Amino acid sequence: MNQLTQQLQFIIEIDKLKGVLRRSYLMDGSRRENSAEHSWHLALLALTLAEHANEPVDVTHVIKMVLVHDIVEIDAGDTFLYDTVGNVSKAEREQQAAARIFGLLPATQRDEMLALWQEFEARETAASRFANALDRFMPLLHNYYNEGRPWREHNITHDQVLRMVRHMGQGSETLWEYAQTILDDAVKQGYLLP
Amino acid sequence: MNQLTQQLQFIIEIDKLKGVLRRSYLMDGSRRENSAEHSWHLALLALTLAEHANEPVDVTHVIKMVLVHDIVEIDAGDTFLYDTVGNVSKAEREQQAAARIFGLLPATQRDEMLALWQEFEARETAASRFANALDRFMPLLHNYYNEGRPWREHNITHDQVLRMVRHMGQGSETLWEYAQTILDDAVKQGYLLP
Repeated sequence: MNQLTQQLQFIIEIDKLKGVLRRSYLMDGSRRENSAEHSWHLALLALTLAEHANEPVDVTHVIKMVLVHDIVEIDAGDTFLYDTVGNVSKAEREQQAAARIFGLLPATQRDEMLALWQEFEARETAASRFANALDRFMPLLHNYYNEGRPWREHNITHDQVLRMVRHMGQGSETLWEYAQTILDDAVKQGYLLP
Repeated sequence: MNQLTQQLQFIIEIDKLKGVLRRSYLMDGSRRENSAEHSWHLALLALTLAEHANEPVDVTHVIKMVLVHDIVEIDAGDTFLYDTVGNVSKAEREQQAAARIFGLLPATQRDEMLALWQEFEARETAASRFANALDRFMPLLHNYYNEGRPWREHNITHDQVLRMVRHMGQGSETLWEYAQTILDDAVKQGYLLP
């Protein structure tokens, strides 16, 4: 199989990410969001909000990370942040998915994509901490604009959200502060349980 | 209004791109594709297929261009490639859309995004020619895998497609050659009129 054919197998395979539904709804509430369009949105957040990272980051590296960060969900599914059982097996399921899907690519590119995904997951670099902050920040905005629909559907409390998104501050203190004002208001408005 | 608030207005506004439907269907044929998830897919094509550009390109610049290239469709809509009437007014409608939507951002970022979009449209740089090649290549793959659904729905001929996608060769001879074999086969299979 030549290089291009191998690359196209990957390109065709990842079309499936458009069918992986997240818990969050579009801003207009019309339907749930899928992980492909979410990844696009995060890339635009990276491009727009990079100045708010705690440490200087290479924006293009952050963009690459968020573009690939959810591809494993094609096999492993989107695990709801508050699903304690699902989150136990999540790491193993995603590891297998990464090996299979990125493994469709020629070896050098497979290794490059795997490295991006692993860096995102590990949250050990400044770029990764910022990418993760964006990934936690965006659903809060969506949920807030949808009057807390996923929160209300699953009886989520203010404390639960805080625990789950707290590490946002490691990537961006500015976004974390903004998120807290949103969450406080969400409780006031009755979108989120106190 | 502070910098972050202004940026978030843009972030919230572009959520609407997820509601702009293209003519092409997902690979699995389940529904039409939207322009946000299409933009994500193109960014992954850029990351994966850059070696096939005719001239060396800065991949990250190509990625940025494809991430923003369709945002104007929020106001201007997706104009079908074969809609001759719609394509007459397209440039003006998109120009106004770009001014309004990118205009939500702080001035420096507005100018950066406008420049990316204009570069994509002009097809004058190597990076732009390659980005445009990807944008023409991907729908062919989708249509081929869906047994020519949008082509059959609109009685499109092999010649019409060739005329519309020919400039793909300016960005990537390799993709252009591959596209031609796909199109020839599409005619053989009855997906596309001779």
